[in-house]
Amino acid sequence: MESTTPTMQGAVCPLPISQHDHIVIGHGAGGVLTLQLIQSVFQKHLGNVILKQGNDAALLRLWQEVPEGQNLVISTDAHIVSPLFFAGGDIGRLSICGTVNDVSMLGAVPKFLTATFILEEGFPIVDLKRILVSMARAAEEAGVRIVAADTKVTEKGKSDKLFISTTGIGWVNRLHTISGQSAVDGDVVILSGPLGNHGIAVAEARGNLGFHSQIKSDVAPLNGMIAELLQAVPDTHVLRDPTRGGLATTLVEIACQSKVSITLQEADIPVDRDVRSACDMLGLDPLYMANEGKLIAIIPAGSADLALETLRNHRYGSNAVKIGVVENKPAGQVLLKTPLGTTRHLDMLAGEMLPRIC
Amino acid sequence: MESTTPTMQGAVCPLPISQHDHIVIGHGAGGVLTLQLIQSVFQKHLGNVILKQGNDAALLRLWQEVPEGQNLVISTDAHIVSPLFFAGGDIGRLSICGTVNDVSMLGAVPKFLTATFILEEGFPIVDLKRILVSMARAAEEAGVRIVAADTKVTEKGKSDKLFISTTGIGWVNRLHTISGQSAVDGDVVILSGPLGNHGIAVAEARGNLGFHSQIKSDVAPLNGMIAELLQAVPDTHVLRDPTRGGLATTLVEIACQSKVSITLQEADIPVDRDVRSACDMLGLDPLYMANEGKLIAIIPAGSADLALETLRNHRYGSNAVKIGVVENKPAGQVLLKTPLGTTRHLDMLAGEMLPRIC
Repeated sequence: MESTTPTMQGAVCPLPISQHDHIVIGHGAGGVLTLQLIQSVFQKHLGNVILKQGNDAALLRLWQEVPEGQNLVISTDAHIVSPLFFAGGDIGRLSICGTVNDVSMLGAVPKFLTATFILEEGFPIVDLKRILVSMARAAEEAGVRIVAADTKVTEKGKSDKLFISTTGIGWVNRLHTISGQSAVDGDVVILSGPLGNHGIAVAEARGNLGFHSQIKSDVAPLNGMIAELLQAVPDTHVLRDPTRGGLATTLVEIACQSKVSITLQEADIPVDRDVRSACDMLGLDPLYMANEGKLIAIIPAGSADLALETLRNHRYGSNAVKIGVVENKPAGQVLLKTPLGTTRHLDMLAGEMLPRIC
Repeated sequence: MESTTPTMQGAVCPLPISQHDHIVIGHGAGGVLTLQLIQSVFQKHLGNVILKQGNDAALLRLWQEVPEGQNLVISTDAHIVSPLFFAGGDIGRLSICGTVNDVSMLGAVPKFLTATFILEEGFPIVDLKRILVSMARAAEEAGVRIVAADTKVTEKGKSDKLFISTTGIGWVNRLHTISGQSAVDGDVVILSGPLGNHGIAVAEARGNLGFHSQIKSDVAPLNGMIAELLQAVPDTHVLRDPTRGGLATTLVEIACQSKVSITLQEADIPVDRDVRSACDMLGLDPLYMANEGKLIAIIPAGSADLALETLRNHRYGSNAVKIGVVENKPAGQVLLKTPLGTTRHLDMLAGEMLPRIC
């Protein structure tokens, strides 16, 4: 049987502009359509933030990039948020910020990202362009470059519009000891702003609220704020962003890793009024809602005021507050003291609240 | 309305062993189920190849790891092969080898990988374990460590069992100039072994062949073989693995990037007899079939014999052959001289041959 391999006749360097409005299976075949998609959609709309190299792997001049005595920090995330667009952001912004933030939470300066795109056949290219522009803006704000990318296409019904996976790479000073294991007795727990906005924005975009609110996702790149915090308070012990599972789950993880106990004052934990109403309406607890532009900082008591002042001076930390303290034991315990004088144990999230929140 | 957030009462450090046979939505929630999955499935079956750190990002002691004067090489891939298991490999082995090979093709030594896993609700955990063990074996063979990972779960029907995205990081000597732009007039084109085995193995696993063959995917980590080749032939110009789009598409890309012309001798291009029969039966051209354990090396003519000898001494290059030469112009042209004396222009793949081949 003769081969029926479809090939493109004529010169392919340079490629003609893509004529498709929607993703087709051929966009994932590694041939002309894939190259057209990469050049006329990905590279064009990611703009300056992407290195155009043309090899399968990107070569970075490390000796120009990495100062002496630095450690490498690497983080990775898959993003499957549904829907793709919501008030305050989209999967593109979320994927950049999520990974930038993870790298920054170890005190590292994020520098390079990679991104893979799993597209569903039929996905509108106009939406892909919109998401790429959003990624470019987030990457520019964070000061990171996308150095490698890959695209695959599934048949219709075998994925869900678009999934993005990102890996972030950064450098941190060799002597830095920020980690989930570094909280100690006497430390102060600081939260950079109100909880639950991202979760509710996504719930609303799904139609769960039943009305239109003004709530927007807080998704933001926090590396700039973290750099200022660490400049002012270099002995910061722990940084973590309360994403999936929320503040409560994140603090239980830290309490376990550091083998300490954490006690929070419920009245001090900020939740915007409309977010709280929406949570009540949906039967959701703000302490377990995903946040994509907030951080928890665990700071030696003597530096807490300076940490608060530094965070409050930044646009993403203007509502930073002290919410609790670290105590010696028992390991893994997180307590919430309510305004009524009662005490509630906070545990890790065990089931699922809102699937595909990030 | 009171919150109905499901939480897990009692101590969570350490976690109880997971009791699930299949992936549930809660495994992606970031709470107890996610941690159980990470500890009792991912970390347990990835074994020594994964760094167990517990922070969102992994901290690597760069100053211990990176020799002076090295450049960083980064590559990323999404893997959506269907089905997940095929003769000779699976999505796990494919994801490790694909990224190890991309990094190696720039002459770099691959060191660290990250991996994200997008799971479909209902996916059998026994299959996940099998895939993780396969990844561990491939990573051990390649001498790389998985330093960061992430897991998300979609509802049933919103993905297709499992997708994996990997990012690889390695180092290359500052002075290395291996790239797709480095082929020059007079160079020799070498192929490390026969074409089409991976594509046919996947087609067979889908039931396309209609009978059982002995054909296995060639999926393999080539970094060891590449290290030996570069030790013997440090002036190697181009290395590339002919994956999606096959040998033909890959050579057209190189011819465009290097602005050269490549002429191949069809009689010299190896294809196993049973692979050729299967291709004929399915109407597929071996020149466009995906290969996951082969490389193209473009070598200065004076070093070609040494390159062939070096490759043939390695288990993955025992059938290495010279298949063509590089000429000055016209840029982007790839010609195939047939045994009959005719000449065929090879172009890039334009449509889709076998979707979700890698």
